[in-house]
Amino acid sequence: MLDVAFRHPIRLIANALGVPPPAMIALGKQHGVPVAALVGAKEHALRQIAAGVDILVVQGGEAGGHCGEVSTMVLVPEVLRAVEGSGVAVLAAGGIMTGEQMAGAMAMGADGVWTGSVWLATPESECSDVFRDKMVAATSRDTVRSKARTGKPSRQLRSAWTEAWSAAGAPEALPMPYQSLISEPAIRACDRAAEKGDPAAREMVTYFVGQGVGLIDQVRPAGQVVQDFKEGFARSMERMIGLVE
Amino acid sequence: MLDVAFRHPIRLIANALGVPPPAMIALGKQHGVPVAALVGAKEHALRQIAAGVDILVVQGGEAGGHCGEVSTMVLVPEVLRAVEGSGVAVLAAGGIMTGEQMAGAMAMGADGVWTGSVWLATPESECSDVFRDKMVAATSRDTVRSKARTGKPSRQLRSAWTEAWSAAGAPEALPMPYQSLISEPAIRACDRAAEKGDPAAREMVTYFVGQGVGLIDQVRPAGQVVQDFKEGFARSMERMIGLVE
Repeated sequence: MLDVAFRHPIRLIANALGVPPPAMIALGKQHGVPVAALVGAKEHALRQIAAGVDILVVQGGEAGGHCGEVSTMVLVPEVLRAVEGSGVAVLAAGGIMTGEQMAGAMAMGADGVWTGSVWLATPESECSDVFRDKMVAATSRDTVRSKARTGKPSRQLRSAWTEAWSAAGAPEALPMPYQSLISEPAIRACDRAAEKGDPAAREMVTYFVGQGVGLIDQVRPAGQVVQDFKEGFARSMERMIGLVE
Repeated sequence: MLDVAFRHPIRLIANALGVPPPAMIALGKQHGVPVAALVGAKEHALRQIAAGVDILVVQGGEAGGHCGEVSTMVLVPEVLRAVEGSGVAVLAAGGIMTGEQMAGAMAMGADGVWTGSVWLATPESECSDVFRDKMVAATSRDTVRSKARTGKPSRQLRSAWTEAWSAAGAPEALPMPYQSLISEPAIRACDRAAEKGDPAAREMVTYFVGQGVGLIDQVRPAGQVVQDFKEGFARSMERMIGLVE
């Protein structure tokens, strides 16, 4: 996979779980491609720097998908303090859906932000229309951090699927990668049945998404998301500069 | 208690659990004293506004003490959007220990911040020297949200006490206020024994504190905390203005 990736004119390569393999870091340096890595705790950040990554994606526990338990608001300054002087860029992640939040994260000292869930509520995303509707309806309290999809804790939309796995008497999730072998085919079958209108399947539909789902109130084209980020950032900066003046 | 409070020249009164009683809001209006209330979810914010509060303290789940599950980074913009046009002031709370974070929360749209844990690591605070030492040593992963102290979920430093209550086979916490009747005398006895040097008691010592404990690396006088907040806010604004210019 790395060989294929580096045969293309990529500008960035990122590793989501753990420290990237040495070959990934070596290929990054060889091709002049920065290597990013996600971290959910200060200790992870120090290990990533020792391994030679260029960019830390510091992701709070409110994020969708695999995540830790420390919030973005705390984890970003904690990591910034721990990696000061290392020259590594720090991107804040977890819960960030607007340009105002991007300004907030950068005011805390991050070099920028890394976003995920906000792109799911676009027509361009990989998820189903049923899930798009569920995201628009959801509040920030409608997610759950659970092992029931992949075997490691990941945040996802609460649904009949996640409720069943957390019910009294439910079996424990299997370790990664076995849990995905059970869950993915079943969840995909639910997605297909839900798209055809099956109400019980619709109840089961879930996907990785962060608490920021509470800030999704419409489906927008990806280009509009970019534009809205720029405008929100500018509005925030204008207000803050006005405050200081 | 309200009568006593309003006999003094107070500038603010705040209610921490639920909607303030009508008498509190009426006395606030009568005396020209703003009434603040803590909220951990968008729905709470709407109920507080309907009740007539003047200031919302929007507190993320990383906060110390009683708290919900939605992070500060998400909850603040979610509440701001829900209460837009209400004229109610919004203070961000949960995890905020520095002036840079204060700037970040205000860049997201908050009118200011409300802080708690940062004041515990001052010589002026109510906590013990043993707990102060534990705060300096702790990382952001060393807190737990547990019912084991008051009967409602509250975030506190992980210790032999919280571990025992979360162990397999431990009894469920009693509902508020009964759990405090069990826990407070025992915890206070541990505090006293720990101050006298008992190592087992020291292991038990815990108190309400947020994930921001990971940003506490020294005990500072309260006046220094204020000064550091001002300097951090100024540094953050300088950097952001430089970025825009």
